[in-house]
Amino acid sequence: MSKESGMTVTPWEVSGEVNYERLIKEFGTTPISEHLKDKVKKLHPLIRRGLYFSHRDFDKWLEAHEKGKRVSVITGRGPSEKMQIGHLVPFLIAKSLQDEFKCEVFIPISDDEKFYVKEHLGFEDAIKFSYENILDLIALGFKPGKTFIFEDFVYTDIYKYAARIAKRMTYSMAKTSFGLSPEQNVGWSFYPAMQAAHILFPQFYRGKHMSVVPVGIDQDPFIRLTRDIAVHRDFNFEKPAALHSKFLPSLGGGAKMSSSEGNAIYLTDSPEEVKKKINKYAFSGGQATIDEHRKKGGNPDVDVCFQYLKYLFEEDDNKLKRIEDDYREGRMLTGELKALTIEKINNFLKEHQKRRELAKKQVDKFLLKNK
Amino acid sequence: MSKESGMTVTPWEVSGEVNYERLIKEFGTTPISEHLKDKVKKLHPLIRRGLYFSHRDFDKWLEAHEKGKRVSVITGRGPSEKMQIGHLVPFLIAKSLQDEFKCEVFIPISDDEKFYVKEHLGFEDAIKFSYENILDLIALGFKPGKTFIFEDFVYTDIYKYAARIAKRMTYSMAKTSFGLSPEQNVGWSFYPAMQAAHILFPQFYRGKHMSVVPVGIDQDPFIRLTRDIAVHRDFNFEKPAALHSKFLPSLGGGAKMSSSEGNAIYLTDSPEEVKKKINKYAFSGGQATIDEHRKKGGNPDVDVCFQYLKYLFEEDDNKLKRIEDDYREGRMLTGELKALTIEKINNFLKEHQKRRELAKKQVDKFLLKNK
Repeated sequence: MSKESGMTVTPWEVSGEVNYERLIKEFGTTPISEHLKDKVKKLHPLIRRGLYFSHRDFDKWLEAHEKGKRVSVITGRGPSEKMQIGHLVPFLIAKSLQDEFKCEVFIPISDDEKFYVKEHLGFEDAIKFSYENILDLIALGFKPGKTFIFEDFVYTDIYKYAARIAKRMTYSMAKTSFGLSPEQNVGWSFYPAMQAAHILFPQFYRGKHMSVVPVGIDQDPFIRLTRDIAVHRDFNFEKPAALHSKFLPSLGGGAKMSSSEGNAIYLTDSPEEVKKKINKYAFSGGQATIDEHRKKGGNPDVDVCFQYLKYLFEEDDNKLKRIEDDYREGRMLTGELKALTIEKINNFLKEHQKRRELAKKQVDKFLLKNK
Repeated sequence: MSKESGMTVTPWEVSGEVNYERLIKEFGTTPISEHLKDKVKKLHPLIRRGLYFSHRDFDKWLEAHEKGKRVSVITGRGPSEKMQIGHLVPFLIAKSLQDEFKCEVFIPISDDEKFYVKEHLGFEDAIKFSYENILDLIALGFKPGKTFIFEDFVYTDIYKYAARIAKRMTYSMAKTSFGLSPEQNVGWSFYPAMQAAHILFPQFYRGKHMSVVPVGIDQDPFIRLTRDIAVHRDFNFEKPAALHSKFLPSLGGGAKMSSSEGNAIYLTDSPEEVKKKINKYAFSGGQATIDEHRKKGGNPDVDVCFQYLKYLFEEDDNKLKRIEDDYREGRMLTGELKALTIEKINNFLKEHQKRRELAKKQVDKFLLKNK
């Protein structure tokens, strides 16, 4: 947990200017080296373009795969009413890993966590939100038969695994990683065990093997806690590997894209909504006037539209380079960059929303059920 | 929780001379009045002979039944390797209530609690012990179709109900009733919510109605906690009623019959084992020599054999009175009382063990399964 010099990065708060290199040192993770990047260059550009910047044992995961051993991916979702584009980050990597390495992907949906934490979220609503989020996940094109989505309030057998973890996790341990307070409900106290059960689920389900968790760097304390428990003699599992991402900026340019700021772009937004939001709220790296922009150029490094293109919506490296150069040198105006981004997002959402409709008939192929 | 003048009565410790009248005052429960006893005189003698001595709202429960409303009984079991005769107390009352009032009985088996609390209890063993205990419970003659037994690690859908309770129970609340410490595992932190879910399960399952919990007086703090939660606007349930029992003495005469003292009489004991245990360990109210006994008489009030006859094995009031008088006046010797008790227990166990074998084929009729 880093809380120095204006930067706060904990699992429950991210604010200030984030110094990712310092986080690597403080958390004790490993930077993604050029050598490692080279090995996974066919994966989604999120890695080679640096949104994923740090890892734990991902090299061991690749090595296990090279040796023909089972590997898997696990990445979860705390269901919200509607998913937004920033929520796609871990799932795009998960799908890319599945496509490249033909591995299984496990997706726990922690309706229980949301239910515990959100005072006014009703039980039935927590389950309803899960369903809506699951449609978005299936729409991303995960392979049926190789992808296992499970909701804690539906696949309640997860309680058996959470219980086995819970026995080996003291309240003190959970408090250190999760910042529990005695005035929080006992669902919160238990949830760290549930989350560790999610991360270790691939090994409970398939036996000991290397599994990787794509996750925001702020969640690393949970990974550390789970890695400690994985090797307890009760389990004798592999320590799960992790791929850590930086924070995708919010529309307004804040450190972490968050629905609670409002104005996020949702996966169910209409083209008009996207256009309005980007034009009105997207933080720009451009200059105050057109003349000035033509003269000085814009700054793509802080421009939110450029970040969205770079990490989510422009897979072609050459095209992206051209946009970056044109913008930086003032040949491309902010209005033009926004128009291009709106078009790219809307193309993606049009296709996504179509697949999301089809997903309604596929849900049963993906959901784990109690035996 | 009472911890004064040498008496300790908390859910996790009972020691010293127990003053039951003071417990009623301290816990704020209601003594079972002669009027109430009169209303339930057809029930198992455990009530009219005073092992059950206190209650909460049991009069309201009876009233609801008189008005033709649904009533039910809920009493649980933390499964141990083998059940002993003292464990029968709440179930004999539950069965008697079912027979008399034709009501449903719910029996949660908290394999998870035992698993959390016992450092060396393995997960599979916790489930195995449940099965062994369930056979003993079915052997008592509960009605199939009206009796619902569920294990937390099998009927994992219970997690959904526990979660709803957990949301409304802070760690502080749980700590007050359960004496949690930060060095205990987070399973312990969560279990108070699970236990409240057990107690409220009849209402989750059948809708709001009066349900009664036969339970040792030491467990009353959990009842109070659950009654507070029952009326939360999330649930709007009836406060569960309770019937509180005194502690059946251990073989050696201690305050609470406990397997950990060893020398308990198990439901699977052979006639020889019972004979040996009673003769060797049963605390006697007799005098040091036969002559003295003939002269001064024995004290049935502290004699363990007499307590077992009174509460468990001699239903006939007249016969019991004769034994009591004969023993008190020295006409019956300790050896004779022991021989009589051995015979009674062995008759019971012979029948019980026969029914326990038959129960193996009936388990499916009683167990709740996930949907």
